[in-house]
Amino acid sequence: MEDINMGTHVLGKVVGCNPDFLRALNIEDIKGKVSQIIKDCNLTELKDPKYHPFPNDSFTALVGLAESHAAFHTWPELGVVTIDVYTCNYSRDNSEGARKAFDEIAKLFGKGKVIKREIER
Amino acid sequence: MEDINMGTHVLGKVVGCNPDFLRALNIEDIKGKVSQIIKDCNLTELKDPKYHPFPNDSFTALVGLAESHAAFHTWPELGVVTIDVYTCNYSRDNSEGARKAFDEIAKLFGKGKVIKREIER
Repeated sequence: MEDINMGTHVLGKVVGCNPDFLRALNIEDIKGKVSQIIKDCNLTELKDPKYHPFPNDSFTALVGLAESHAAFHTWPELGVVTIDVYTCNYSRDNSEGARKAFDEIAKLFGKGKVIKREIER
Repeated sequence: MEDINMGTHVLGKVVGCNPDFLRALNIEDIKGKVSQIIKDCNLTELKDPKYHPFPNDSFTALVGLAESHAAFHTWPELGVVTIDVYTCNYSRDNSEGARKAFDEIAKLFGKGKVIKREIER
């Protein structure tokens, strides 16, 4: 049973975001921007990405990609957003797309500090 | 801008799975089993988990949790399944639940070798 490299996962968070900025985010607006980012990164979004709002004005996004997935969770009460972009590199190397998508999604949440790492899976 | 620990992410894969076993998996059956696993791990599944089948009999699952998310992708052609279970530990420590959910989800894919790691986010 040989191990196999299953792609690149960029994961991290934006800390020090403005809580009111995070609370005021419009989910439909973010959804459209994320779709555009994914396209710009040469990745393919699956239909019906899941955006789930919570009562405290936070939300969770789970976005299927033909190349794996992206996910993020906002935490207005902490001024934090966690972000994952995972792409397989099976048919072609998507690692640059994963890095760029992470960086562009992070920019949607204002001027916090981005902390990220990259894992070969 | 202080860094904040945003929980426990268990990620990894099952390698050396039987390709025909993975191809024959019934998504509705897996969906029900995953819902039960999440409950048994004291985690809370959000409604409408997303299971996306691909033409090559692989599928992607994106499961929102009140505590963050779980995701897995099957690769019958490689005999591999990648798995993520990420839980925040904000209201309470969910790390044991994340570990157990990862292990139980991994068992759904037969007798492959489980390779995993745990990341504090």
